[in-house]
Amino acid sequence: MASASHRPLAQTGNRVAVIGAAGFGGALCAAIIQGHPSLELTVVTARSDAGRRHDDLYPIHRIGLTLEELDPDAIAERADSALVAYPHKAAAGAVRALRERGLKVVDLSADFRLDRQRYEHWYQPHEAPELLGEAVYGLPEINGHREEIREADLVAGPGCNATAALLGLWPLREHLRDAVVDIKTGLSGAGREATRETHYVSAADNVNAYKTEGHRHSAELEQELPAGIAITFVPHLIPVDQGLLASCYAATETDLTREDVRALLEDAYAGEPFVEVVDAPPRTADVRATNRARVYGTVTGSRVLVESAIDNLWKGAAGQAVQDLNLMHGLDETEGLS
Amino acid sequence: MASASHRPLAQTGNRVAVIGAAGFGGALCAAIIQGHPSLELTVVTARSDAGRRHDDLYPIHRIGLTLEELDPDAIAERADSALVAYPHKAAAGAVRALRERGLKVVDLSADFRLDRQRYEHWYQPHEAPELLGEAVYGLPEINGHREEIREADLVAGPGCNATAALLGLWPLREHLRDAVVDIKTGLSGAGREATRETHYVSAADNVNAYKTEGHRHSAELEQELPAGIAITFVPHLIPVDQGLLASCYAATETDLTREDVRALLEDAYAGEPFVEVVDAPPRTADVRATNRARVYGTVTGSRVLVESAIDNLWKGAAGQAVQDLNLMHGLDETEGLS
Amino acid sequence: MASASHRPLAQTGNRVAVIGAAGFGGALCAAIIQGHPSLELTVVTARSDAGRRHDDLYPIHRIGLTLEELDPDAIAERADSALVAYPHKAAAGAVRALRERGLKVVDLSADFRLDRQRYEHWYQPHEAPELLGEAVYGLPEINGHREEIREADLVAGPGCNATAALLGLWPLREHLRDAVVDIKTGLSGAGREATRETHYVSAADNVNAYKTEGHRHSAELEQELPAGIAITFVPHLIPVDQGLLASCYAATETDLTREDVRALLEDAYAGEPFVEVVDAPPRTADVRATNRARVYGTVTGSRVLVESAIDNLWKGAAGQAVQDLNLMHGLDETEGLS
Amino acid sequence: MASASHRPLAQTGNRVAVIGAAGFGGALCAAIIQGHPSLELTVVTARSDAGRRHDDLYPIHRIGLTLEELDPDAIAERADSALVAYPHKAAAGAVRALRERGLKVVDLSADFRLDRQRYEHWYQPHEAPELLGEAVYGLPEINGHREEIREADLVAGPGCNATAALLGLWPLREHLRDAVVDIKTGLSGAGREATRETHYVSAADNVNAYKTEGHRHSAELEQELPAGIAITFVPHLIPVDQGLLASCYAATETDLTREDVRALLEDAYAGEPFVEVVDAPPRTADVRATNRARVYGTVTGSRVLVESAIDNLWKGAAGQAVQDLNLMHGLDETEGLS
Repeated sequence: MASASHRPLAQTGNRVAVIGAAGFGGALCAAIIQGHPSLELTVVTARSDAGRRHDDLYPIHRIGLTLEELDPDAIAERADSALVAYPHKAAAGAVRALRERGLKVVDLSADFRLDRQRYEHWYQPHEAPELLGEAVYGLPEINGHREEIREADLVAGPGCNATAALLGLWPLREHLRDAVVDIKTGLSGAGREATRETHYVSAADNVNAYKTEGHRHSAELEQELPAGIAITFVPHLIPVDQGLLASCYAATETDLTREDVRALLEDAYAGEPFVEVVDAPPRTADVRATNRARVYGTVTGSRVLVESAIDNLWKGAAGQAVQDLNLMHGLDETEGLS
Repeated sequence: MASASHRPLAQTGNRVAVIGAAGFGGALCAAIIQGHPSLELTVVTARSDAGRRHDDLYPIHRIGLTLEELDPDAIAERADSALVAYPHKAAAGAVRALRERGLKVVDLSADFRLDRQRYEHWYQPHEAPELLGEAVYGLPEINGHREEIREADLVAGPGCNATAALLGLWPLREHLRDAVVDIKTGLSGAGREATRETHYVSAADNVNAYKTEGHRHSAELEQELPAGIAITFVPHLIPVDQGLLASCYAATETDLTREDVRALLEDAYAGEPFVEVVDAPPRTADVRATNRARVYGTVTGSRVLVESAIDNLWKGAAGQAVQDLNLMHGLDETEGLS
Repeated sequence: MASASHRPLAQTGNRVAVIGAAGFGGALCAAIIQGHPSLELTVVTARSDAGRRHDDLYPIHRIGLTLEELDPDAIAERADSALVAYPHKAAAGAVRALRERGLKVVDLSADFRLDRQRYEHWYQPHEAPELLGEAVYGLPEINGHREEIREADLVAGPGCNATAALLGLWPLREHLRDAVVDIKTGLSGAGREATRETHYVSAADNVNAYKTEGHRHSAELEQELPAGIAITFVPHLIPVDQGLLASCYAATETDLTREDVRALLEDAYAGEPFVEVVDAPPRTADVRATNRARVYGTVTGSRVLVESAIDNLWKGAAGQAVQDLNLMHGLDETEGLS
Repeated sequence: MASASHRPLAQTGNRVAVIGAAGFGGALCAAIIQGHPSLELTVVTARSDAGRRHDDLYPIHRIGLTLEELDPDAIAERADSALVAYPHKAAAGAVRALRERGLKVVDLSADFRLDRQRYEHWYQPHEAPELLGEAVYGLPEINGHREEIREADLVAGPGCNATAALLGLWPLREHLRDAVVDIKTGLSGAGREATRETHYVSAADNVNAYKTEGHRHSAELEQELPAGIAITFVPHLIPVDQGLLASCYAATETDLTREDVRALLEDAYAGEPFVEVVDAPPRTADVRATNRARVYGTVTGSRVLVESAIDNLWKGAAGQAVQDLNLMHGLDETEGLS
């Protein structure tokens, strides 16, 4: 096979490092930046896989770079912005080091998604609380975040579960009293680590709930939605590679008709490049390997139902992070993502 | 391979016909009866596959019989009871013909599950309404049905969705105000017919809701649970062969603790041979190809959550039908099923 | 969601019709052309789905066109070339009609892959034999076909099985005496038709051989490889959506070492944009949704082994057809394909 | 759920220990013995999971025992025979300890399958070479092993790959000159260990060859088949839970017709309880969770083709081990296995 086409020298301003590029989300960040018309991938790092060629781990992405240790000084010389795909807690330190050196950062972990009180309630003492004030929640489609992201130097990429659920519930926010969110998520959401749960024999031909009693994931919903809405949030693991469906059962203050619900969705997402309001329950296969969400609303039983489908690695992680980075760089929001 | 062991002449009283043995549920009925220590499989019928050897369609079951047309008179001479696995509406006529000839019947369709008013609201005019009075709902674990089934000549096998959901909600019935039931069901539940939805390429690596606006499945829940409980019921298709999980989110009149919920489940199913109350969210893989249900209860958000896992073809169809037939014959309820 | 960006008027010369765009291969042809920087998708047709929006069948592709009946005159006014994705026999007539109207054509069926004798031996009397003389076999990487394709007006897209097998065996051609080709192919290769074999319940968790006694697929190998090589060719169906692996076990005239084999592969594919010679057995997942082949050669037992992995819908069908079309239009071979 | 039915005291002579019951194969050994009408499961051991309830690892099996450390003296007091499901090398020591205490043993590892020379060529110095003389190869259907097994105190359970391949090739042994064996095996064959290869995201929607240059698995074939047959043996991993297909491409000394091949298969397996000669390519799904093999023979290209399908955990491991144990105990060979 011919060697990859000559890579021109990256221009200052457009050079991007991906921190933690050995995981599923980070690897996809690298691949998207690699194919991006206006941004250049210059550095990929990994914690345990440093020294290996990225192509040995993800030959399909053909990144052509070697995974490095995280050396903030060296990275600051070769990159202007960074996508950080570390696990929470580890991420905060990396983000601080990069922000101190002037890089714009999109962090994909939970570390900068929540205010300090929520974060420390669900996670642990925050490693870089001084940065919380500048962090913006990176879901452009809701809550006026798009404009904030354009101005931000630090954006927190929302969780995949929260992305799907918020896109489903946000249009109903003024009517909501209570919401049950039943998540069905594919195995890539469980991360690259090989565990009993991610073993093919365990995961295939099976479905089960997990973390039924924790609420960690619901903190993002509570933060982004109006106060006072009771959220019940339960994730389920299904034998899917990439794909996430949020089934949102909402009780509303006043009765809404099906047409009301659809109008609310249509109004909320008119003009949005990545959210499609559809007229039948969405299939996750129909958004696979895209940055799109497909949302469908109706009324069933005594509830409003919104079904919201995304690819957990794209709109739920890497794709959305690049969407945010595009906004931060003043680029068209969809560049490199269609 | 040696020919199947000599099959002794069936004894009068124990001879069973399976009507509609070419579908997934009917084929499994035949297989279970085939291996049953006290019952004898004497007839298998099919509508479009009559004349073919059952082994050509389902070699794994090694039934060794040829599928016949449905001839009630001929069947009445060779069988004492029947499991009817026809689609609804077609089932009613077959059941009537067999009941008129004196056979005990377990019908796996929807035709005898509901009272006439509910049935005709959700389905169509009933084909054999005179039999509704004698039909018993075949979920032995709830509502005192076990004793009714023992005395019955006609039992309606519950739907797979309703089986899982009712096993989850029944123990809470005195506390329930409202329930959201989110079903995840495998492809065998969609039947043997080849359609766009059941094509491997469509079904693999995908999840979606379906029939989001119908309530047909919820009619069984409304009938079996106390009046006045609001039910919201949405099924989802997941890439699983056999397996069904009902996630039941219940609002209760008074607050229940996790311990309360578990005690209610334990009390309801103490001594039950086929229902296990478990202390972690159940996996459908752990009940695959068994007649067991595994139920788990907790409190999450503002809701009681019960997760209930079954194999849709076993406890959700064929296994439960044989469990019912065992009761009707005065046999041990678990015979042939473990 | 915002409406698709304004589509500029297609320039004469670059307008492409996809004939048979409702099948898996044709739909992907349409999607690739849709995203192609130098070609414009102007027409999509279908036989049984004419009148439906393409997006209703394949929402993920966002083609934005309605499927039409095949009207050659109307198409000739709106397209300069066509990708024909009809089943064999039906394809020949469509190709003739389009060629008569001056369109360049890549046909994805078997109709123009074989010389008349081979075709009529394995298939049926040819529907358009007068066109066989101008048809070129569309595998650019072997047998000097690339230059022929550049000059051709009619190219026959190779079968997916043959593509993978030929890419594996071609470099060994001067040494080959005998080859066993064991194909493992995913379900999309079986086509969009819903059948018992493509039902999820039948296809999941299963592997089996099929057409063990036919040789139809081996005719392409016999035609493209030097005469006198005995080919044994058996396809197997595996529970994969998109992906095809050809395991080629070759007996050679003289003994080759592993290094010899690798050198032959490297030499054959140096400079090829879509064929990677790799140093470990290739995974089909690593070429999913790409137009690449990955080939690996070694010596095992008394045989040379070449494992060749492609995506059956891309390099095995639609991607390769666009690769051919690029060559026919004098474009860079990789345009729209990376 | 009612507690498991009272377990009667095991009778001396019929008490079975399963050594290494935490792996997939060992767990299934325990489950089959648990349901065996004439044998009693009295001990289950595990290396890293000792102290845990077996039901916590494999709730579906409902073994009801706690995994113990391997204490040969204690086991010898409570068991008369043992199924050893340790990895090779570790197995030899366990087998010696149990044989020294008088237990009959079926070992599922590679340690006693091969003569010393073959073993030490492919593996390592043997840990218990003095036992090799008494070990019998546990494939009852070939080579007169059934009678040897009846008299044996130590039986080596064949590998899953070798079981399928030998059942396919054995009937042809007098005609064979050369055989290519292409194995397709499911993920449970890779063991319970969580690795990059067994991660769902890696294994789903993928196929690849592995160990293309090792011959370890072919040693069993060379030992059991007549000398001088060239064997080429390559395993492939497919996204199947349980299931293994051996595609055997045989060159024969003299030409055989399809009828010849079928007659050879029929003759070889007439009267065999677990081998079915079938008239269409077998599907692994049709032997799932059974101890059966289905074999199909034909002629294709210049080769005899035999396709042989088993469940790798049943006929390829645990089921066959119990089949062997039945023979060693003078029981009907099929007891507990149908």
